[in-house]
Amino acid sequence: MEANVCSVPMKVGFPLPEKVSRESWPGGTIVRVKETELGGKGIVVIAGPCAVESREQLFATARSVMAGGAKILRGGAFKPRSSPYNFQGLGEEGLKLLREVSSDTGLPVVTEVMDTRQIELVSQYADILQIGSRNMQNYPLLKEAGMSRKPVLLKRGMMATIEEYLLAAEYILNQGNDKVILCERGIRTFETSTRNTLDLSAVPMLKQLTHLPVIVDPSHGTGLRWMVPSMAKAAIAAGADGLIMEVHNDPEQALCDGQQSLSLDEFSLLMTELRKIAIAVDRMIL
Amino acid sequence: MEANVCSVPMKVGFPLPEKVSRESWPGGTIVRVKETELGGKGIVVIAGPCAVESREQLFATARSVMAGGAKILRGGAFKPRSSPYNFQGLGEEGLKLLREVSSDTGLPVVTEVMDTRQIELVSQYADILQIGSRNMQNYPLLKEAGMSRKPVLLKRGMMATIEEYLLAAEYILNQGNDKVILCERGIRTFETSTRNTLDLSAVPMLKQLTHLPVIVDPSHGTGLRWMVPSMAKAAIAAGADGLIMEVHNDPEQALCDGQQSLSLDEFSLLMTELRKIAIAVDRMIL
Amino acid sequence: MEANVCSVPMKVGFPLPEKVSRESWPGGTIVRVKETELGGKGIVVIAGPCAVESREQLFATARSVMAGGAKILRGGAFKPRSSPYNFQGLGEEGLKLLREVSSDTGLPVVTEVMDTRQIELVSQYADILQIGSRNMQNYPLLKEAGMSRKPVLLKRGMMATIEEYLLAAEYILNQGNDKVILCERGIRTFETSTRNTLDLSAVPMLKQLTHLPVIVDPSHGTGLRWMVPSMAKAAIAAGADGLIMEVHNDPEQALCDGQQSLSLDEFSLLMTELRKIAIAVDRMIL
Amino acid sequence: MEANVCSVPMKVGFPLPEKVSRESWPGGTIVRVKETELGGKGIVVIAGPCAVESREQLFATARSVMAGGAKILRGGAFKPRSSPYNFQGLGEEGLKLLREVSSDTGLPVVTEVMDTRQIELVSQYADILQIGSRNMQNYPLLKEAGMSRKPVLLKRGMMATIEEYLLAAEYILNQGNDKVILCERGIRTFETSTRNTLDLSAVPMLKQLTHLPVIVDPSHGTGLRWMVPSMAKAAIAAGADGLIMEVHNDPEQALCDGQQSLSLDEFSLLMTELRKIAIAVDRMIL
Repeated sequence: MEANVCSVPMKVGFPLPEKVSRESWPGGTIVRVKETELGGKGIVVIAGPCAVESREQLFATARSVMAGGAKILRGGAFKPRSSPYNFQGLGEEGLKLLREVSSDTGLPVVTEVMDTRQIELVSQYADILQIGSRNMQNYPLLKEAGMSRKPVLLKRGMMATIEEYLLAAEYILNQGNDKVILCERGIRTFETSTRNTLDLSAVPMLKQLTHLPVIVDPSHGTGLRWMVPSMAKAAIAAGADGLIMEVHNDPEQALCDGQQSLSLDEFSLLMTELRKIAIAVDRMIL
Repeated sequence: MEANVCSVPMKVGFPLPEKVSRESWPGGTIVRVKETELGGKGIVVIAGPCAVESREQLFATARSVMAGGAKILRGGAFKPRSSPYNFQGLGEEGLKLLREVSSDTGLPVVTEVMDTRQIELVSQYADILQIGSRNMQNYPLLKEAGMSRKPVLLKRGMMATIEEYLLAAEYILNQGNDKVILCERGIRTFETSTRNTLDLSAVPMLKQLTHLPVIVDPSHGTGLRWMVPSMAKAAIAAGADGLIMEVHNDPEQALCDGQQSLSLDEFSLLMTELRKIAIAVDRMIL
Repeated sequence: MEANVCSVPMKVGFPLPEKVSRESWPGGTIVRVKETELGGKGIVVIAGPCAVESREQLFATARSVMAGGAKILRGGAFKPRSSPYNFQGLGEEGLKLLREVSSDTGLPVVTEVMDTRQIELVSQYADILQIGSRNMQNYPLLKEAGMSRKPVLLKRGMMATIEEYLLAAEYILNQGNDKVILCERGIRTFETSTRNTLDLSAVPMLKQLTHLPVIVDPSHGTGLRWMVPSMAKAAIAAGADGLIMEVHNDPEQALCDGQQSLSLDEFSLLMTELRKIAIAVDRMIL
Repeated sequence: MEANVCSVPMKVGFPLPEKVSRESWPGGTIVRVKETELGGKGIVVIAGPCAVESREQLFATARSVMAGGAKILRGGAFKPRSSPYNFQGLGEEGLKLLREVSSDTGLPVVTEVMDTRQIELVSQYADILQIGSRNMQNYPLLKEAGMSRKPVLLKRGMMATIEEYLLAAEYILNQGNDKVILCERGIRTFETSTRNTLDLSAVPMLKQLTHLPVIVDPSHGTGLRWMVPSMAKAAIAAGADGLIMEVHNDPEQALCDGQQSLSLDEFSLLMTELRKIAIAVDRMIL
């Protein structure tokens, strides 16, 4: 998987935490979610709406992204929003819709958990627990997720160094849960033309330093729908094990992040292009 | 060339300067350097050492990168170094060596100009004038380069927004020289595990906003030799029109930037992989 | 309190959330903690160790900072540490020690709460609930603190814009708790010679935009013990309503943040200097 | 001058360049400009318009800032502007006006030099050569200024680390000119409510590391006229040896940076307040 890596010994300026270090598991961790494997030769695409809004929206989007080749469905029921006056998600009702769609389509679902008190509830409905950027250093939440048996999708904080990110993952592994998926989703810089600056160099860096699977979120990473395809392709060329993308059946009407969501057609078209890139780096889209 | 771009109208929060704006030349500018065209369907690879060190070093590297498929040779004669006590380049002697190698191999050469007083001299030897990151807002230098008839490779400042970058290019075009090549080479962020943070989202952003060719420098963008291949591939997948990379016949002994220079073999191997990515995005390495 | 502010109308590029906006309470909120008032003409100094380590350490430090003029005692019982292998705090035992010292000295205490499940417990022991930088956008925690009747010291996230910071405070006010104290504690930038970059311009900016009291943490803001006095003085000159500083009876042996903690003598000397600055800006240290 | 500095030995993560290092001149360099001394116990205020616009504007502003207590006049004749379509300064005509006002009032003048070819010309008119932020790493310009006998005001680059800043100053000293004045003027961060983030911690840091005088520019550091007074006071409290501020006789009509320029009355009022802070830190405004 690291065919491009030169043979020069790699040095970083910090000690690697023991359990996440690649040395502790050189072959690389494979996280299994139902029949899908993250971290192997196959590349996994996770897609779905920013937020679960309604039964109709979720079913339409889920069926379409599955037809396009997505293997896991994303959708937020509890939404971390900068303003208290923005839509905060449907809560448990959203979780139930996710479960229902999952049963219907067979797609596993990933959804965010924001509070230690939600982990038990969310675990009843979700196949993967997502810990969002704003909570990357929410240590009680990391510990609680570490005590769960569910796979955890841990997003990089928007101002977290690679070292801090690995230490955050170590909190989870240290509780006995090694089913952790890392996700680069853009960091905060001085640049304002994009929502965040997608740091694709984090992909080869993380692949070198840790045995955990690494995926990329080009939707939050750019904040711009038209830029998602370019960056999705770049992510795979850089060596990512997967992608997580926002797709909506009607982006203009989305209650959340519509400007960065692909339409169903755009997603389908993109998948075709991604397959070519995957082959060019000797992998394949699952 | 922008096959991936969604049809959503693009808005940025700043007015585009007139001459660099894509609207002023929707088809895209092609910069011709001898027989090589930058900005067309073909992707151009520029390679060579950080600094010209000796006749032997330059010839060995030039012949090897040409054999590998590079179309333009890079090499610094005047070097902008953070410390006054570091190697500052061979100066005019370096320029002469570049010319000699160029005559011998047929490869056009690009080299940096740091001072308005050097432009006339450098123009006698170089095919492309490079303006480095630290001088992106050196307005007298931009104006002087604009009065030259030479193509200009203008690197993005490590602290420059996309808006400022386009305005810097406008300084050159405004003097009547539209042969400007843009180059993303990494921006400065809080992250320290890489030398800079390569902002690949700048590629689709610049391709949308301006008609100028856009290339990427993964060597400075990462500062890490082993990471160059991953990011070079990602750059092409993101839509770059070319790459500029540091290659040295003996990286361990390089007087400058050895830790980010590819060896001759690594470069050759990488070129093979890049060709596959180019095909996957419906382009080709020239 | 805003004597220095020019009469030019102030515009920022974002809408101010309603409840934190200065317009909603032009006179300025005063947060009362026992007999101490934050947000009035008097300047309040909060001091104490990074972490509660032992009865002896806490008593020695508390008595000394009280003698020096501190009005509120700080000390962490639950510590958010980057690594799971670092000292995580004494937990409830630490809270009990804080209560005991508070009863003995009469100093109110502020301590951090990291988890929604801790709020009830911590509220039994603390006079002010601190929400740390890493949790500034932990919305469930903000809401829960908003439902509490305790004053809340909300630290600015190290990656938070002024707009996001005000929105985070709005989450608390929106639940009915307007006893919120804001605290600039350094933001993350490219500079590495200091731990963070203390953004003192946040002080006049926040004082203009909101009615809430604004204090400064020069200990985390610089990470360097010898730099704390300069920045503490600058903070008061910039218009801060208070300071929170780390002080330890034996900084060299501290289990946490010793390199940024003042010794007892240094604190006492600094207080003398701070009184002079306060007078120069027509205020006083309480 | 460093009364507040704790006795803890100071360590930074980089080697200090020899000539700028405080060890090479522990007592501190005093830069004399006519009768004014920068770097001693007295604090020097430099004031004037962003750009020289006209005889009337310059005379009115110069007389007023002198009456208020400024000891040196600032004013740009060659202006580095982001856009080629913005006012670029009056050039040599502006230099002549500066000289005329200087002769009339006795105030020494500081003005920016942007090009190695301008140094001889500007030196005929100016008492201090300013090298602006965008040129902090313009090494030919630094060397040329180092060969001059004029004092040099070297502004910190907006994305320069303290280490890079000191190395840039070393370029000047290394040519035999040790009359260098350092100036913190705000760095670029993610925060957008201010034009830059004024890094006042650079003041004690630089005072520790180097023997050169350190001043602060709160006008560019904030970009906001109403915030200049707070930050000017904070700069002096932090230990700055001087201030450089933009003052205009009619800020609303200024051709450049009007939104950050103080009016004549505001400047005069501010000087009164600054005197109090200076006394509080045991210094005085010259």
